[in-house]
Amino acid sequence: MHRQTPVSSFNGKAEPVIVVQKYGGSSVATTEKIRNVAKRIAEKANGARIVVVVSAMGDTTDDLLNMAQELCPMPDGRELDKLLATGEQISSALMTIALQAEGISAVSLTGGQAGIITEKVPGKARILKIDPRRIREELNNEKVVVVAGFQGVTDHANWADITTLGRGGSDTTAVALAAALKADRCEIYTDVDGVYTTDPRIEPLAAKLDTICYEEMLEMAGQGARVMHSRAVELGELYDVSILVANSANDTPGTVITKEDPTMEVRNPVRGIAHDTDVARLTVVSVPDRPGIAYQVFQRLAEKNINVDVILQNVSKSGVADVSFTVAMPDLEKTKCALYPVIKEIGAEDLVTDQNVAKVSIIGSGIRSHPGYAARMFGALSADGINILGISTSEIRITCLIEKGAVRNAVRALHKTFELEKP
Amino acid sequence: MHRQTPVSSFNGKAEPVIVVQKYGGSSVATTEKIRNVAKRIAEKANGARIVVVVSAMGDTTDDLLNMAQELCPMPDGRELDKLLATGEQISSALMTIALQAEGISAVSLTGGQAGIITEKVPGKARILKIDPRRIREELNNEKVVVVAGFQGVTDHANWADITTLGRGGSDTTAVALAAALKADRCEIYTDVDGVYTTDPRIEPLAAKLDTICYEEMLEMAGQGARVMHSRAVELGELYDVSILVANSANDTPGTVITKEDPTMEVRNPVRGIAHDTDVARLTVVSVPDRPGIAYQVFQRLAEKNINVDVILQNVSKSGVADVSFTVAMPDLEKTKCALYPVIKEIGAEDLVTDQNVAKVSIIGSGIRSHPGYAARMFGALSADGINILGISTSEIRITCLIEKGAVRNAVRALHKTFELEKP
Repeated sequence: MHRQTPVSSFNGKAEPVIVVQKYGGSSVATTEKIRNVAKRIAEKANGARIVVVVSAMGDTTDDLLNMAQELCPMPDGRELDKLLATGEQISSALMTIALQAEGISAVSLTGGQAGIITEKVPGKARILKIDPRRIREELNNEKVVVVAGFQGVTDHANWADITTLGRGGSDTTAVALAAALKADRCEIYTDVDGVYTTDPRIEPLAAKLDTICYEEMLEMAGQGARVMHSRAVELGELYDVSILVANSANDTPGTVITKEDPTMEVRNPVRGIAHDTDVARLTVVSVPDRPGIAYQVFQRLAEKNINVDVILQNVSKSGVADVSFTVAMPDLEKTKCALYPVIKEIGAEDLVTDQNVAKVSIIGSGIRSHPGYAARMFGALSADGINILGISTSEIRITCLIEKGAVRNAVRALHKTFELEKP
Repeated sequence: MHRQTPVSSFNGKAEPVIVVQKYGGSSVATTEKIRNVAKRIAEKANGARIVVVVSAMGDTTDDLLNMAQELCPMPDGRELDKLLATGEQISSALMTIALQAEGISAVSLTGGQAGIITEKVPGKARILKIDPRRIREELNNEKVVVVAGFQGVTDHANWADITTLGRGGSDTTAVALAAALKADRCEIYTDVDGVYTTDPRIEPLAAKLDTICYEEMLEMAGQGARVMHSRAVELGELYDVSILVANSANDTPGTVITKEDPTMEVRNPVRGIAHDTDVARLTVVSVPDRPGIAYQVFQRLAEKNINVDVILQNVSKSGVADVSFTVAMPDLEKTKCALYPVIKEIGAEDLVTDQNVAKVSIIGSGIRSHPGYAARMFGALSADGINILGISTSEIRITCLIEKGAVRNAVRALHKTFELEKP
C-alpha cells in the first residue's frame, strides 16, 4: 500500500493517489517555517490529492494554557479545549495562505469542518467517527485540504462543542483521516529522520530502520522511544494505515510503520533497543504471604489508571515477601497516595521508592519465534558488569530494570550484541 | 425599555431581565483586564441573565493579520476570516474561565455556536439570521453566556465556513443578539464615558449626553464621531434595541442610544458638534455645462462604492463650470483612478485635489423643525473669521467644509453658539 515516491497512480478507478501529511509544531513554528513547508508540499505534490494536518505553531499551546492558568489554576476542560483549539486553527489558516502564495489551490478546515466527531471528554476526547464529505468535496475540487490537528467536535450541528484529542492528538488526526479517506499514504513529518535501532545520542552507530511493524513500534514507544505517540500507531494498526515517519527539513526516506511483512523472516529478529530513565521503582516491604494480597495492591493501581511494569516478588521467607514494580515517573506521587492506605490494610511494613532505576529493552517481532534472546540479553549485560534488578517481557520484547547510571553502557552493549549497526 | 440600574425585574412572565454586554479589545487586552471585567460582571449581575460579547484581546487581530500578510500581501478572505476569528474565540474562552474563577457559572460560544448565520462574504459578512436556541438553553441553565464577537458562520452544519463581520463587528454582534433574544438591555462597554456634545479633547466644556436618538448618533458617527460604528446603531434602530454606551473602567452612567422621546421637544434642538479632518476635496475643473455631466461623474463614483459629500457646483460662465465634492481620505486614490477616464470623456480640463479641508457639523433631530439654525451656524463661523468652502445638509444635520487649520476654532465657536456646555 505504501509508496516511497510521491508519484500519481491509478488504482483501477482512475483516481489520483490521496496522501495525508502531518507537520508538527516545530515544523510550523514561524511564518518562515510555514512558508518552507508550503514550498515543500508544492514541489512534491506531483498530482497527488493532499490532506495536510498541522499542529499549533511552536509554543502557542503552552502560551494559551499559561493565560488560562493565570486566570484559574484548574481551568474548565470545555473552555480550555476551545481555547487550545485556536492554535491549530491559526496554523491551518496560515498554512493555507502560504500554499496559496505558492500558487496552490488550498482550503483550511477545523476539526469540526473536517467532520471529526469525538466523545464529549474535554482534553482527551477519542474520535467516534469521521464524516469526510467536506474533505472529499474539496479534494475533488483539486484543493489541498489543510486540517487543524488535535481537535474535533461533539456533534454535526454548528453549536457542537469543540474538543481536543490530548497527547499525540495531531498524529491521531492524521492517521484517522488517512483511514477515513482510504488514503494511499500517511506521512508524519517531524524533526527526526525516522525510527532508529536505538537513540543515536547514546549509540552513534544506531541505524535508521526502513520499516518497522506496528507491534514493534508500540513496544518501542511504550519503552521510551519518543518518535510517535502509541495512540496514533494503534489506530494505524486497527485501520491498516501504513505510516511514514520522516524529517520535514530534509529528504531522508524515513521509516514506514506498517504490518509485518514476509521479509521479516530473514532479517534480524531484534529491531531495536529502547531505554526509559523516566521511571521509578516502588517496593511494598514485608507483605504477608497470603493469597489475594497482590490483587489488592495492583487492583488499587488499576482503579487509578496507573500502568505498572516489571513486577517482581521475591521468595517468601518466614511468611512475608517484598513486592516491587515500576511506574512512569509522572505517576509516582499518585501511586504513593493510592497505596499508603493499602499498606495498612494488608499489614505490610513499608512502601519504599527508588528513582535511581531505568529500563532497557530489546524489541523485535522475531523474538517470539526465536528462543534464546533473553539469555543473550542477560549475558551481554552481565559481561558489562550491569546488575539486573528486574525483568518483564512481552511476546516481542524483553525489558531489564537496571541502575540509572548504567543505561548508556547497557544500550551500547545490547546494540552491539544483537548486531543492530548492520544495515 | 432601557433601565439605568441593573435590577432584576419581572415583565409579567416572571422571567429575569436579559442583558447583553459588549467589552471591546482594550477592555480585555490582558488577563489582568479580563479578570477585572469578570469581577465587574460578577458584582453587577444582580439576578439578570447575562450575555457577554467580547472583542479580541488588544492587538491580537493586528498580530494575526501581520502573520498572514508576511505569507501573502493579499491573503484569501475565507482563510483570513478563519484566522482572525480565533482572536475572539480566545478572549471568549478566557473570559469564561475568569468568570468561573469568580464563582460564576459561565460558558463560551463561538459565533457559530451562538447561531449567528451570515452571508458568504469574507471580511464583511452581514448577519442573515440568528438561531438563539443554544444561548437560550445556556441562559435557562443560569449560565453567563460569553459570545465571541465579530464572527458568524455561513450555515447550520458544522462544516459551515467561519466569517467575520468587518468594522464594528463586535458591536453589531451585541446589538443583533440583543434583538434576537429580545433583551431588556444592550450595553456597549468601551474606553470612553459615553457620547459627548463634541470631542472633549477639542472643547473641554463638552458635556456627556444622557440619551441620543439613533438618527442623531448615525449623523454623529457619519460626521467623524468615533464612539460607535454606524452599522450597530442602524441595527439597533431597525430592531428597536436601546444601546447604552459606557466606560468599562468606571461607573459613569454613560449614554443611551434610543428612539426619539417626547422630552426632545423641550431640550436643545442641537445635540452635538461633529468634526472630520479625514477628508479630501476634489474639483473637476471646467466641466462643459451640459445636462447629464454631473450624472456621469457621480454615477462612476457610485459604481465604485465611493461615498460623496458636500457637493458644490459654481455658477456657469462661458459655458463651463467647476464641480467640487468631498470624499473620505482613504477613498481619495480610488476616486482619482475612477475619475481620470471620465474627465477625458466629458471634456473637462483637470481634476484637482485638496487635502487641506475639514468638515464641521451641527447635529440634532430638533433642527428639522426649527428654522434658522443654518444662518446661526454660518454667522458663528463668520464671526470667527472662518471661511465656508461648501455646505451639505440632511434633515437633522448641517455640515460646513472649512480649512483644516480652522477646525478647533470652529468646533469651539459652534459649541458656544448653540449653548451645548449647558447640562
